[in-house]
Amino acid sequence: MNRKELFQLIQKKMSFLCVGLDTDINKIPKHLLASDDPVFEFNKQIVDATHLSAVAYKPNLAFYESMGSSGWDSLEKTVNYIRSVTSDIFIMADAKRGDIGNTSAMYARTFFSRYDFDAVTLAPYMGFDTVSPFLEFKGRWSIILALTSNKSAADFQYINDQTNKPLFENVLETAQNWGTTDQIMFVVGATKAELLKNVRKIAPNNFLLVPGIGAQGGSLEEVAKYGMNDHCGLLVNSSRGIIYASAEKDFAAVAQEKAVELQKEMEVYLKSFRLI
Amino acid sequence: MNRKELFQLIQKKMSFLCVGLDTDINKIPKHLLASDDPVFEFNKQIVDATHLSAVAYKPNLAFYESMGSSGWDSLEKTVNYIRSVTSDIFIMADAKRGDIGNTSAMYARTFFSRYDFDAVTLAPYMGFDTVSPFLEFKGRWSIILALTSNKSAADFQYINDQTNKPLFENVLETAQNWGTTDQIMFVVGATKAELLKNVRKIAPNNFLLVPGIGAQGGSLEEVAKYGMNDHCGLLVNSSRGIIYASAEKDFAAVAQEKAVELQKEMEVYLKSFRLI
Repeated sequence: MNRKELFQLIQKKMSFLCVGLDTDINKIPKHLLASDDPVFEFNKQIVDATHLSAVAYKPNLAFYESMGSSGWDSLEKTVNYIRSVTSDIFIMADAKRGDIGNTSAMYARTFFSRYDFDAVTLAPYMGFDTVSPFLEFKGRWSIILALTSNKSAADFQYINDQTNKPLFENVLETAQNWGTTDQIMFVVGATKAELLKNVRKIAPNNFLLVPGIGAQGGSLEEVAKYGMNDHCGLLVNSSRGIIYASAEKDFAAVAQEKAVELQKEMEVYLKSFRLI
Repeated sequence: MNRKELFQLIQKKMSFLCVGLDTDINKIPKHLLASDDPVFEFNKQIVDATHLSAVAYKPNLAFYESMGSSGWDSLEKTVNYIRSVTSDIFIMADAKRGDIGNTSAMYARTFFSRYDFDAVTLAPYMGFDTVSPFLEFKGRWSIILALTSNKSAADFQYINDQTNKPLFENVLETAQNWGTTDQIMFVVGATKAELLKNVRKIAPNNFLLVPGIGAQGGSLEEVAKYGMNDHCGLLVNSSRGIIYASAEKDFAAVAQEKAVELQKEMEVYLKSFRLI
């Protein structure tokens, strides 16, 4: 999927919502534990309930790895299930990988060939070598960590260089040249909405993956205000606020409500920016 | 294992060699492909052949993930096999993970509880939040990327701050305070041996995991000269130079030769530093 197609998907669904599939066996409704693969069963019902409101899903790999090899089976089944339900979807592996050379090429093959992900999140610390093997896959995206929403992001991301430029701005400037705007996206935390203005000056055309809405306290309105561009340019993630909105048997219905609520709000912003 | 015990292990084996288990199904000897689990079978024979010369093993996770869930089974069997063969060993997951909060806690549990690793490599970009959950596991280590051996390490790691300090030195300074020298290690590439002098000024007591010997061109002599401290303070990794030294049926015997060769050279340096 290229940038234009992703924008068309956003227009069609009037949504730039990403549902984070951070599926924790200890947090899913107890009645699911009787099924053969509770993690997959939970994801399946969440996908059924939310795929009309969301343009993207983002499983965080940590949750699947923590289950050992069976977690990877649940992940694979989830990706395949999403593909079987709809072709109007963008799937991101929130893996935050960052290695080099033949090792990085292995990761790229894993996420783009073995598993059918559209995009992978990557850590920039080791530079271009980390991202380069991922760029060889046409129609697939590398999502580079730039400005994260956690407190200790300040440890390094805010260190100013000799021209007074913080590290995260250096990452944005340098990494946007590693590929086209059809290939490179950035992670920018929603809890730093006012900083989105700076981000948009540096990377006006790149899509941004924005976590931190909801449980982490970010404001969707501010994200839209400061982050939206003429292709929308935003994928806003909500995980806990949707998938764990209810811990009871009605979890999927409640997740649907929450997703629809966010979609409706997004529709307002898309209209006010005259993008739909 | 704490720092003192790791040093005692190094003294006992007269070696600070780590064997990198970057096991690629496409590179292992063809006759192994007939076995039920060729990756594990390869690792098993490598471990049998090298464990007297090595103090550590370091599987790079990318190679196992690329096999899907069966790769994770091979990894688990490998870790368990190493533990069954010897208690005199340190096992590192070269995972380069870097996430935050409950996600990071998931990764910590995965590597330290589900799999019995002594240490995990971590990317510093998101700051202390990435490492904090790992520190809760007593006797386990976080190995922070500081100065890597690849060309594009320069993209960000060499950016000077306003006091003329490169990012990798900021990482060393800040991250060594996240935990004790029984918990925090750093990755420092061997191809930058002269920079090890600076690293040792900033982090005199931390163990360093040094990749880049052999295939990547680093000199063991220079690494020892600039990097050794009074606890040795070095784990030097070789992967391809040992495990793929032969692609024939004699691969394990040749791996043993190469490992012994490196151990003998290390013994010389340990003696010249009067550490044994």
